[in-house]
Order: sequence, then C-alpha cells, then structure tokens
Amino acid sequence: MALRVGVIGGGQLARMMIAPAVELGIDIRVLAESEGMSAQLAATAVGDYRDLETVRAFVRDVDVVTFDHEHVPQEVLRALIADGVSVHPGPDALQFAQDKLDMRARLTELGVPQPDWARVENIDELQAFLDDHGGSAVVKTPRGGYDGKGVRVVHSADDAADWFARLSTGSAAAGDALLVEELVSFRRELAQQIARRPSGQMVAYPVVETVQRDGVCAEVFAPAPGAGDRLVQVAEGIGRQIADGLGVTGILAVELFETDDERLLVNELAMRPHNSGHWSQDGAVTGQFEQHLRAVADLPLGDASPRAQWAAMVNILGGPAEGSFEDRFEAAMSEHPDAKIHTYGKVARPGRKVGHVNAAGDDLDDVVYTARAAAAHFA
Amino acid sequence: MALRVGVIGGGQLARMMIAPAVELGIDIRVLAESEGMSAQLAATAVGDYRDLETVRAFVRDVDVVTFDHEHVPQEVLRALIADGVSVHPGPDALQFAQDKLDMRARLTELGVPQPDWARVENIDELQAFLDDHGGSAVVKTPRGGYDGKGVRVVHSADDAADWFARLSTGSAAAGDALLVEELVSFRRELAQQIARRPSGQMVAYPVVETVQRDGVCAEVFAPAPGAGDRLVQVAEGIGRQIADGLGVTGILAVELFETDDERLLVNELAMRPHNSGHWSQDGAVTGQFEQHLRAVADLPLGDASPRAQWAAMVNILGGPAEGSFEDRFEAAMSEHPDAKIHTYGKVARPGRKVGHVNAAGDDLDDVVYTARAAAAHFA
Repeated sequence: MALRVGVIGGGQLARMMIAPAVELGIDIRVLAESEGMSAQLAATAVGDYRDLETVRAFVRDVDVVTFDHEHVPQEVLRALIADGVSVHPGPDALQFAQDKLDMRARLTELGVPQPDWARVENIDELQAFLDDHGGSAVVKTPRGGYDGKGVRVVHSADDAADWFARLSTGSAAAGDALLVEELVSFRRELAQQIARRPSGQMVAYPVVETVQRDGVCAEVFAPAPGAGDRLVQVAEGIGRQIADGLGVTGILAVELFETDDERLLVNELAMRPHNSGHWSQDGAVTGQFEQHLRAVADLPLGDASPRAQWAAMVNILGGPAEGSFEDRFEAAMSEHPDAKIHTYGKVARPGRKVGHVNAAGDDLDDVVYTARAAAAHFA
Repeated sequence: MALRVGVIGGGQLARMMIAPAVELGIDIRVLAESEGMSAQLAATAVGDYRDLETVRAFVRDVDVVTFDHEHVPQEVLRALIADGVSVHPGPDALQFAQDKLDMRARLTELGVPQPDWARVENIDELQAFLDDHGGSAVVKTPRGGYDGKGVRVVHSADDAADWFARLSTGSAAAGDALLVEELVSFRRELAQQIARRPSGQMVAYPVVETVQRDGVCAEVFAPAPGAGDRLVQVAEGIGRQIADGLGVTGILAVELFETDDERLLVNELAMRPHNSGHWSQDGAVTGQFEQHLRAVADLPLGDASPRAQWAAMVNILGGPAEGSFEDRFEAAMSEHPDAKIHTYGKVARPGRKVGHVNAAGDDLDDVVYTARAAAAHFA
C-alpha cells in the first residue's frame, strides 16, 4: 500500500508537496485550516491544528505526519508522540523553530556562529544590551513571528516599550521575555538547506543568496554568486551541525548573514520547505518538496545538485492591481517560454505571496532577467 | 477563477497531468473508469466514457475537455461539440488516432512518408499485397489496438484468417476491413512530439529514439543518439506537417521508423501525452504533461528544449515478482539518488506499465545506466 503522509496546514508549502507526492506514489493528505486553501486538492480534513482531537482524527489514517508551518503547539505534538504517531520534524526539534530564545540558547551550546544576543525581560535589560552594542539592536518576539513580523530594529529601549507591556499581561503566547540581537552589519543574506532523515542521513543543497524586501523574501540566486569553496563549506558545515545537533527530520533552512568581514552568522531557522529553496523545484535534481517527503518518510534522500549552472527564484507578491492572476498568464508565458511559473491558488492581497517564478540556465544575468521579467507580469 | 480542465480517463497519463496542473494553477478534474485508478487524486467522477450522459454530467463544470486515451467514441465527442464544449484534441483530429485506415489515407493525402499500405477486405486482397511485397507484411486492426495489440506480422494471408472472420460478423467495432502495411526494414524507431494550440502555435521536442520490446515501449533516449541536423529537421517537419494537417490540439506523438537507407516513415500517431515523451518530465524545460495542459487550455506553449545534454527513460513493466512496488523504493533510491522514479499507483501485473525512471545528464552512458539500474530494482 502507498505510504500515507499527512501534512498539517494547507498553505502553499503543502500544495507544492502534492506534485512530488504523486510522482513518488505517496498518498498525501492535508489538514487545512479552512476550505479553499492552497493545498485544497489533497485536503482530507478541515480544522484547527491547535485542537488535539481534530489533529488526532486527521492523523489516524496516515503513516507519517509533517507540516506546512511550525505553529502546531508542543502539547499537541507531544500527545501525538505519546499516541505512537510518527511526527517529522518531532517536537524536540520543532521547539527550536518555534521559540527563538530556545534556538539562540541551543545554538550557543552547539558553538554555532550567531549574532550576540540576550534574553531581556524589561527595558533596563534591553538598554544595557544597547549600551554594549553601539545603541542599536534587533528585538524579536520569541514566538509567532514570520516574514518580518515580530522583528524590530530599535535605537532606544523605549522603541520596544509596547512589546514589554504585552509581556506583563502574563499570557502564554506573549511569553515572559524578548530576544535582543546585535544589529549585524552584513554584506548579504544567504540560506543553507539540509535534508535529514530519521536515520541521520543528510544531504546539503548549495548555499544560496536571498534578497529580502520589507522583511519578506523577494529573490533567491542559486548557488550564491561569487561564493568560494570556503564559504560553501562553512555554510554546509553550519547547516549539518544544526540539523544534527537539533535532531531535525525533513528539510531545514538556515538563514545566514554574510558579514563584511566574511563570517557567517545564523539569523533564523525553518524546519520545513522554505522560500529560499523554491528554486530547487526547477533548478535541482531533487526539489525541496520531494526531498522533504523523502526525508520525513525515511526514504533515501535524492541528489541535491543543481541541474543547471544557475537558478533564480522571484516571488510574486500581492498579485495584479487589476484583473485576475490567471489573466496575466498569457503574456508572462508568451514572452518567457522558459520561465517556470508556480501559482498558489490564493486570493491576491498586497504583499501576500501568491506565486513565484523559477528560471535556470548557464548565464546568471539571463536567468535572473527571465525570472524577474516573468514575475513582473503579475505585479 | 482557475481554469478547469477535465480529463476523460483516469490512467497514468491523467495522473501525470496532476503535478503540472497544480503548479500552473489549473483546476484538474478526472472522469475515471473506476475507483482507485492512477489519477484517483483528481477524480471527481467515475463512469463509462462511452455513455454520453455520463460524459455530459462530468464536463458540465469544466472549461476544457481533454483525454488520457483516444477511445471516446466519435458520437460522444460530436455531441459535446454540439453542446458548445471545448474539446482538445477535437473529434476531427482524433478520428485519425482512432482509425488507422483513416490515418493512412489522410497521411497519403498530405504526402507524408509512410510504409506502403492498403485497405484489405478479404484474404485475396491481403494475398495480393503480400505477393507485391516479398511475401511478408504487417496486418493491423484499424481500431482499438495499443501496445502491440491488434498488430501482427504475417507471412501468408491465412495468418490473418481469424481477423477476417471477425470482420464478417458485421459488428461496428470490428469494422469492415483490415490495414496491411509493408514490413519496413528499419534501423531503429524514433518518436517526434509536437505541441499545438488551437490558435495554431506549435512547439517541437527533439526527436528521440524509442526501443520497443514485445510491441511495448521499453526505453527512450533523448535526443536520438547520433541524429544529425538533417534527421532532426526532417522528423520535426513531419511532426509539424501532421499536427497542422490533422488539426491536432494538445500533444501529438509521431512514431517513426528510421530505415536502413536513412528515410523516416510514419508508423503510428498518438494525440495525447505519450510514453515516448515521459523523459521530458525531468529532461526538458517544459515536460509533455505541462505542455499538453498549456496547449489544450490555449495558453502559450513552453520551451521544449532539453535541460541536459542527454535524458533516458526506462519503463517499469509488471512490477516486482514478490513484495510490493513500494518495498523496492528503498534500494532503488539509495543506490541511484539522481534517478527520478515515477509511479502510477497501479497494481502490478506481468507486462503492465506501473512506472518509469528518468535520468538526465551530460554523459549518455551514465544516464542510460542510471535509468536502467534504478528500474531494475522493481523487476
């Protein structure tokens, strides 16, 4: 019988697992948050992933559980483990993607290079950190942030006063401290993806360059242009160390700063297919969505080598100001027959990720032009 | 709203349209012959494609109708056209894939190179053809043949006596004549794929070499090794002439004989994604399943260029003698991380196509070895 993989969350990451699941013969089932989500085609249940009984009912008929996002509560995950369900990544790993203070503390234990950081419970503690770091820093809420949300550059401790006020309400979601990090002077941002099976087998993708706009991933170039052997090795080493040290199963994405003095520092972690890896759908022998399925199903990992010298990914954010997304296909496809346009089946809203374009080939400028120009048709 | 494409037939060709449909944002719906077919994930109806009312009910909520096979009766197709349904390929084109006598007659009108052929209604007519062609020939039933069925090499007119006897029953399915063709002395078999939109836009894939065993496609090498510019141009020219001349919409596959004296002769036609084009899923910028969807939806066609210098496809026929298909994944994937294994979700039977393996790269020998060795794990 076909292996049944259950995905909690019905967004575009679950959607993009459908195509490789079909080809691998994996029976993919999705617990969607509501009707009409991106991964609708494979949705076998609709409900709240925070509700244990909803999740229990969904996972009853699957062999392995994985995720479209990292928001399933630890209590739910641990109850599934107690039920004997196979969950990848498991709660012990996922906690480090769910709580940035836990992540920073664990990476410190592992000796992984990262920005200076501190746990701060009040304005005075934040001010002390600022005084030690030239008066500026990045403050983050430990939980629930994504795409730039829950992240703020501060130049005075008062800039985070509202977040400290929320802490004092004592709600579990708010937590009892903020994370403050050194404001890193970086040359560019990179991302390293590693796939890891429960058995420990790991495969590394080439390190890529990511370009963020307003805290949201806008473009990715693979491999990172101009990256020398040393940089590639260091990035891969950091990725492997984290995947192994945190016991990640499935795909791990490590967002990195490349500093002006050529060090790599870990910015964020994601334990699922990640926007920085979308290029691999059309640019690598094994795309990240196929690789994630292989990893969580404990199947041997695929070759993560690039298929072409260069690949580029450009996000489609927000969709067209007028007309429908579909109306734009004609022109984009007509002018760029070599562009691979991926749509998420989502209603366009300003800034919302509704699709992306991949391109691959031997000339970096051509590849970037193709991806950008095709994506521009949907703006 | 997403474009809705309805596929009649739930086999592996419909299944392999699901992956590109998801990425293109096409809402794909399948009329399957029974529950649990290959394309189950997208099946929205189960029923008999020969029954007009079943088909009418299925197509009510789609924008375009296309096919997993060529067996939908002309009466049903023409009734849909009369209803105003968009059907691609349409009945005027499909008849030439449904009836090999019609096909031969039309290709003769077009002046396309093909084996000598004749329509034969009785043993005497067949004997006359044999006498004119060295005593051997290929006899085909005009309708319903596939994968070598309905095809027989004869050395005496009596070898087809049973088929002539069936003609005399007067059943519509049997028809009233057989097709006899010259037994071509060929060096190898090739296949040319062409995608054509309703608007007339065409895109040609590189001509490939196909290897048949027992009348069933076993292996494909893309592009056809050793094919010179002239051969490539002639093959493409034949493909374009047929696609245009027959008004094909969607993907057309032209099976060709390359003769010992370097001529190309048309063997068979298929008006749907075809086994000879499976390599393109992992070996071309635009795979044949994506291309077919683009063509039938009248979207601009994609780049049909190879992604790598060489690609190979090896069919998995029959599945393992013991154990399940899935049990073999572990070893095949472990030893061949660069092999792309595609499964059809079908129960294995001797000789049944249950999957295929693609490989692509810069060295033909390596690529062929990888595809063969990975496929051998499933034998």
